[in-house]
Amino acid sequence: MADTNTNTLYQYSTISALLSGICTEGLDASTLLEQGTYGLGTFSDLDGEIIVMNSRAYHFPSSTNATVRPLNPTDTIPFAMLTTFQPTHILPLPTTTTSEKITLGTLSALLTPLLDTNKNTFLSLRLTTTFAWLTTRIIPRRSSPEETLADCASRQKVTNHGRSKGTLFGFWSPAYTVGIGVPGFHLHFLSEDEEKGGHVLDFEGEGRGLEVAVLREVRLELPDTEEFGRGDVEAPTAEMVRGAEGG
Amino acid sequence: MADTNTNTLYQYSTISALLSGICTEGLDASTLLEQGTYGLGTFSDLDGEIIVMNSRAYHFPSSTNATVRPLNPTDTIPFAMLTTFQPTHILPLPTTTTSEKITLGTLSALLTPLLDTNKNTFLSLRLTTTFAWLTTRIIPRRSSPEETLADCASRQKVTNHGRSKGTLFGFWSPAYTVGIGVPGFHLHFLSEDEEKGGHVLDFEGEGRGLEVAVLREVRLELPDTEEFGRGDVEAPTAEMVRGAEGG
Repeated sequence: MADTNTNTLYQYSTISALLSGICTEGLDASTLLEQGTYGLGTFSDLDGEIIVMNSRAYHFPSSTNATVRPLNPTDTIPFAMLTTFQPTHILPLPTTTTSEKITLGTLSALLTPLLDTNKNTFLSLRLTTTFAWLTTRIIPRRSSPEETLADCASRQKVTNHGRSKGTLFGFWSPAYTVGIGVPGFHLHFLSEDEEKGGHVLDFEGEGRGLEVAVLREVRLELPDTEEFGRGDVEAPTAEMVRGAEGG
Repeated sequence: MADTNTNTLYQYSTISALLSGICTEGLDASTLLEQGTYGLGTFSDLDGEIIVMNSRAYHFPSSTNATVRPLNPTDTIPFAMLTTFQPTHILPLPTTTTSEKITLGTLSALLTPLLDTNKNTFLSLRLTTTFAWLTTRIIPRRSSPEETLADCASRQKVTNHGRSKGTLFGFWSPAYTVGIGVPGFHLHFLSEDEEKGGHVLDFEGEGRGLEVAVLREVRLELPDTEEFGRGDVEAPTAEMVRGAEGG
């Protein structure tokens, strides 16, 4: 039986906090992983990207030549979105002899049947397939406590991957969540060999096998930390979030 | 022992949905009341205001001469915020021989010691006292399915109460929650004789006895209704929310 957390969204902290430079303190990774089986997040001081798949958390550090590593249980996570993922929809795609391609640009159209009747809820998405190409970014660790997510995003490290097998996981969020999360798509990638990945900027993959769940319950946990308690968190505009998190 | 819902915020639907005219369908009142002991909300088609105190829900209907009535278990609630209220702070106020006065305008200053270290969390507030005066509004029922909260708020019924005993209850929400809730104060009032009340626009009351709790956990439930699923919910600006909910 599905537990009560299945297909609910658990979120720790807010994107507005990251945009205001509140990203040093957070939850222990081990505590965070009790909240879901799939998800994404960032690392203390924005040092890279995190993806959680099948209850295992991977960290893409930002330092040069660093490789993907399992998250350490005591690592500090200042922002994350997790869900106990159980897909409720597998998108019906044409099965022609030539593979259907799916890109970040066509994802909305592909989801239209689902979004038409779930316009204002969250979606979780998983796509395990072969990608013809894929572009990811990894946020660099901030160099001072004054730097915000937008500052670090301006010098993000972008990687163009060639043909790759792997999994995308992430969320689609409604426009009205702009102060809390990332409106639109927010996807992270892990390659099948667990050697590469990051925050997805664009991709072209085979369309079959896009698994989706509709999320109507959100559990938002606000940090009980000094920096969150005393920090000035601004209400960001959609443009500010897109600039820091968009493609 | 405090149950796990104590001082968490449960919210059903969003202020952006009301501002987009999504306010007919919702939860049964009886289901809603399982989520907290204190709170506020609105009624189907914006027909008045709701306050929940000590697990009892009161409805201030908008029709002329209608009086406060207990909410019916099958009444439909399109938006509500509830918490199992257990105050963690009672604000230390000077106890001079002349009573200290508290108004909506001085509430922020009064809460400064608490807000300084909890800038980005929610607060719940309860003030049971004598009010020198108090102004409330009641939203009128919308006259067509096209009307939004802002439309109805433009013809709200404002009442200036004279000296009254009663209770204010409501929430303070951070600026970044603008798409979800009402940034700043959102307070409802019920008189001690349970005969008058509504959404608070301004007041002057004796300051003693302001009880507050810090809320770091939010459970947001998005409606599983036809109108929410298919409606176009816009991301509102702070001005839009203030125009509909402000003083």
